[in-house]
Amino acid sequence: MLTLGELAQKLDATLVGDASTPVDGLGTIQSATGSQLTFLANPRYRSFLENTGAAAVLLPESQQDYCPVAALVVKDPYLAFARASAFFEVAPQPAAGIHPAATVDPSARVADSACIGPNAVVEAGARVGEGAVVMANTVVGAGSVIGDACRLWPNVTIYHGVTLGPRTIIHANCVIGADGFGFAFNGAGWTKVHQVGGVRIGADVEIGASTTVDRGAIEDTVIGNGVILDNQIQVAHNVVIGDHTAVAGKAGIAGSAKIGAYCLIGGAAGIAGHIEICDKVQVLAMSLVSSSINEPGTYGSALPVDKQSRYRRNVARFRNLDDLARRVSKLERSSD
Amino acid sequence: MLTLGELAQKLDATLVGDASTPVDGLGTIQSATGSQLTFLANPRYRSFLENTGAAAVLLPESQQDYCPVAALVVKDPYLAFARASAFFEVAPQPAAGIHPAATVDPSARVADSACIGPNAVVEAGARVGEGAVVMANTVVGAGSVIGDACRLWPNVTIYHGVTLGPRTIIHANCVIGADGFGFAFNGAGWTKVHQVGGVRIGADVEIGASTTVDRGAIEDTVIGNGVILDNQIQVAHNVVIGDHTAVAGKAGIAGSAKIGAYCLIGGAAGIAGHIEICDKVQVLAMSLVSSSINEPGTYGSALPVDKQSRYRRNVARFRNLDDLARRVSKLERSSD
Amino acid sequence: MLTLGELAQKLDATLVGDASTPVDGLGTIQSATGSQLTFLANPRYRSFLENTGAAAVLLPESQQDYCPVAALVVKDPYLAFARASAFFEVAPQPAAGIHPAATVDPSARVADSACIGPNAVVEAGARVGEGAVVMANTVVGAGSVIGDACRLWPNVTIYHGVTLGPRTIIHANCVIGADGFGFAFNGAGWTKVHQVGGVRIGADVEIGASTTVDRGAIEDTVIGNGVILDNQIQVAHNVVIGDHTAVAGKAGIAGSAKIGAYCLIGGAAGIAGHIEICDKVQVLAMSLVSSSINEPGTYGSALPVDKQSRYRRNVARFRNLDDLARRVSKLERSSD
Repeated sequence: MLTLGELAQKLDATLVGDASTPVDGLGTIQSATGSQLTFLANPRYRSFLENTGAAAVLLPESQQDYCPVAALVVKDPYLAFARASAFFEVAPQPAAGIHPAATVDPSARVADSACIGPNAVVEAGARVGEGAVVMANTVVGAGSVIGDACRLWPNVTIYHGVTLGPRTIIHANCVIGADGFGFAFNGAGWTKVHQVGGVRIGADVEIGASTTVDRGAIEDTVIGNGVILDNQIQVAHNVVIGDHTAVAGKAGIAGSAKIGAYCLIGGAAGIAGHIEICDKVQVLAMSLVSSSINEPGTYGSALPVDKQSRYRRNVARFRNLDDLARRVSKLERSSD
Repeated sequence: MLTLGELAQKLDATLVGDASTPVDGLGTIQSATGSQLTFLANPRYRSFLENTGAAAVLLPESQQDYCPVAALVVKDPYLAFARASAFFEVAPQPAAGIHPAATVDPSARVADSACIGPNAVVEAGARVGEGAVVMANTVVGAGSVIGDACRLWPNVTIYHGVTLGPRTIIHANCVIGADGFGFAFNGAGWTKVHQVGGVRIGADVEIGASTTVDRGAIEDTVIGNGVILDNQIQVAHNVVIGDHTAVAGKAGIAGSAKIGAYCLIGGAAGIAGHIEICDKVQVLAMSLVSSSINEPGTYGSALPVDKQSRYRRNVARFRNLDDLARRVSKLERSSD
Repeated sequence: MLTLGELAQKLDATLVGDASTPVDGLGTIQSATGSQLTFLANPRYRSFLENTGAAAVLLPESQQDYCPVAALVVKDPYLAFARASAFFEVAPQPAAGIHPAATVDPSARVADSACIGPNAVVEAGARVGEGAVVMANTVVGAGSVIGDACRLWPNVTIYHGVTLGPRTIIHANCVIGADGFGFAFNGAGWTKVHQVGGVRIGADVEIGASTTVDRGAIEDTVIGNGVILDNQIQVAHNVVIGDHTAVAGKAGIAGSAKIGAYCLIGGAAGIAGHIEICDKVQVLAMSLVSSSINEPGTYGSALPVDKQSRYRRNVARFRNLDDLARRVSKLERSSD
C-alpha cells in the first residue's frame, strides 16, 4: 500500500488531491474502486474519467479539469501507469535457496541469493546469477548462463550453451536453444546438420509463454537488449534481433533473418529467412516479409475478412487477376 | 465391454439386431471389426456402410435398409457416437492421492479424491477440487483454483490467480496466466506494465495442447462455459470468449478482443485487438478479422494456393491493383 | 578433434592439404579460425572463400583453385558438412541409467542402456529402448513405446498409446498424443468425441520444439520414416505424413489431411482437413492449401508486404475485385 503522496513522488507526478489517501491496487477507469489507481491515456475516454470512482487518476494536464477525484498529473500517463504497476505486482516473489526437490549438478554454480524451485534441474557447468529465479520444473542445460535477477517461469527448457543477460524474464514453457532446422538432402532423405552454435540473449529482455528460440547452426542466434517477445513466437537459427524491438504473438522469423532495432513486428507476421529489416520498421499483423526492407515505415500484406459470398467471388477473380490485367491492357490499346 | 442392448439403452437408440452382441471398442466404418461400434453420419459413405464389418452402426433411420450388420438407429449418429466414445475411452484414470514425488505447499488445499501426479507442484494457497487430476510435472500457481473433476495433463503451467471451473480439461504444456504483452515505450525502450489481472475459465471447457491464455493487465481474461480451444492457440490479455465458442488450432486472439457465444473460429485465424465479434460468427481458416463483426454469418479472407507461376503473376498484379482499378475507371469514362 | 586426413577419409573427400592438420570445430566461411572446418556450397560466396581463415574448406572441384587453405573436395559440400557436423556435436550425451529423481512405474520396461533423466516419468507399461534418452522432466505415457536410440529432450509430454520408431528425436516441450479436436454439437454445446486412436511415428524422425501431434480419433495419426518437422507445428488427429517430408516452423495440418512423401511444406503454411497432397509437392510459406493437390510442383498463395499506403489502397480494391472484373467484361462487350 502506498499513499498518493508517495506515488506522486515515485512517479514524479503533480498531485492534485489529498496526499494521505491510501492506494492498494490498480483498476480500469470504468471500474476502479476508491482505493485503486487508474490512468487516462486517450482523451476519447473522458466520459469514463468524469464518472470514475478511482482513488486517483494518472492523466495529462489537459484532462485535469475533468477529473472528479484526485489527479496525478504527468506527461505520459500510460508510461507512468506502467511504472506504478510495479508497486502493485501480484506475482509471488520466491525466497532464495535451492528447493530440496531440485536437481543441481555439483559442477553448476548457483548464487546464494538465487532461487531454484522444486524439480528444477541445473545441469553440469551451468551458472545461475544473483537474485535469479528458476521456477518449478524448469531445466537449465549444461554450461548455460542465467544472468543476475533473471526469472524463468515453470516448465521452461534452456538447452546447453545459452546465455541470458541480467533481468531477463522467460515465461513458462519457452524453449531456448533447441536445434535449428538444418538438414541436407542426401538423395534418399535428410542428413542432420548438427547445430553447434548457441543462443545469446541480452539484458532486460522479456520472452512470452511457449516461445521458441533455436540455437545457431554454427554461430549464435542473437537477441539484443530490451527486446520484448510475446507468446508462441518462433525464432529460427541464426536470427539476429536488434535492441528494443517488439514482436507480437505467433510471429515467425525464419533462419538467418536479421531484424533491426526499434522494430514492431505484428502478430502472426512471417519474416522469411536470410533477409534484413532495417531499424524502425513496423510490420502489420499476419503479413509476410519475403524480401529485405531498407526503409523505415509501416508495411503490410494481410487481407481482412469479408462476408463469405463476396470473399469467395473476389478470391475467384484473384485467381485470374493476371488475365484481367491483360484484358485491361488490351482495352486500353484498342481505345487509343 | 458393453452389449448392443446396453448401448442402445444408454444412447436412447433403436436397436435392430441382437442385444447380446458384445462391443469392446470403436472403429471406422471401413475398418471396424466384429466387436467394434461405428457410425454413418454422411450418406455419401453408404458404400462403406454396405460393406462394413462392424458389430453395429449408429445411423439415421433413412440408412437403416443399407446396413448389413446390427443398426443402432438415432437422429444424430455423430452425436450418438460422441456419447458412445466415452464408454471406450483409453486414457488411464489415475487413482486419488498425492504422489510422493509431488510438492504441495502446506497452505494449499487438495481434495482427498483429487490426484496429484509425480513432480506436480501445487503452490501456496492453491486449491484442487474433488476428483481433479493434476498430472505429472504440472505446476499450479499460488492461490489458483482447480475446479472439481478438472484434468490437467502433464507439463501444464498454471500461474497464480487463475480459476478453472469444474470438469475443465487442460491438455499438456498449456500455459494459463502468463503475463500479457503490456509495455509502455519510455523513449529509450520498454517499461513493463505488470499484469495484475487473472484468468477465469468456466466449466466444461477443453483447452488443447500448448495453448496459451494470458492473464489480464488489470481485470481478468475470461473464457466462458463450454468453450473448446484446440492446440497452439494464443489468447491475449483481457480477451473475453463467450460460452460454447469453438476455436481451431493455431488461431491468435489479440488483447481485449471480445468474441461472442457459439462462434466458430477457424485454424490459424487472427483476431485483432480491441474488437468485438457478435454471437454465431464463423471465421474461416487463416483469415484476419481486423475490425468488429456485428452480424452473424461466415467470414473469410485467406487466398488458397495456386501453381507457383500463376501465383507469382497474380501477386505482381495485386501489387498494382489500385492502379489497374484507376485504369478501368479511365476506360469507363472514355467509353461513355 | 580430428585431423584433415581422418576427415577426408570419413567424408570420402579428396584432401588438398596437410593431412595432419587438426580440426576441433566448425566455422562459417567468413569467420572460421585456423582449427575449424567450413564449407562453400554456393559459388556466390567465392570472395569469402578467397579470404577464409579456416583450417579447411569442403568445396566442389570447380572452386578448388580459389581456396587459400586446405581443401576437402566433394560433390555436395553442404551434405558433406552435414556429415562432418556430427563429429563436432556439442550436445551433452547423458550416461545410461535411471536418475534417482525419475519416477518409473514398476510395470514399465526401460533398457539398461537407456537414460532416464531427473524428474522424468515413465508410466505403466511403457517401454524405453536401448540407448534411448528421456531427458529431465519429460513424461512417457502409459503403454507408449520409445524406440532404440531415441532422444526426448526436456519437458516433452508423450501421452498413452504413442509409438516412436528408432533414432527419432523429439525436441523440448513437444506434445505427442494429446486429444484431437473432436466434438459433436448437441444443440446446446459440445459433446466430446473421446479420442481412442494413438500416434505412430516412424524411424529417424526429428520433431522440433513445441510441436504438437494429436492422437487419432479412432485410428492412429501417422508420421512416416525420416520426416523432419520444425518447431511449433500442429499436426491434427488422423493426419498422415509420408516418408522424408519436411515441414517448416509454425505450419498447421488439419484433421485427416494426408501429405505425401518428399514434400516440402513452408513455414506457417496451412493444410485444410480431409485433403490429400501427392508426393513431391512444395508449399510456400504462409500459404493455404484448401483442396487436394494431385500434381507435384510448387504452390503458393501468400501476398508479400508492401508499404502501408499502397497496401491499404490495394486491399480496398481487392474488396471490390469481383465488381472490377464485371466492369472490365462490360467494357469488353461495349468495345466489340
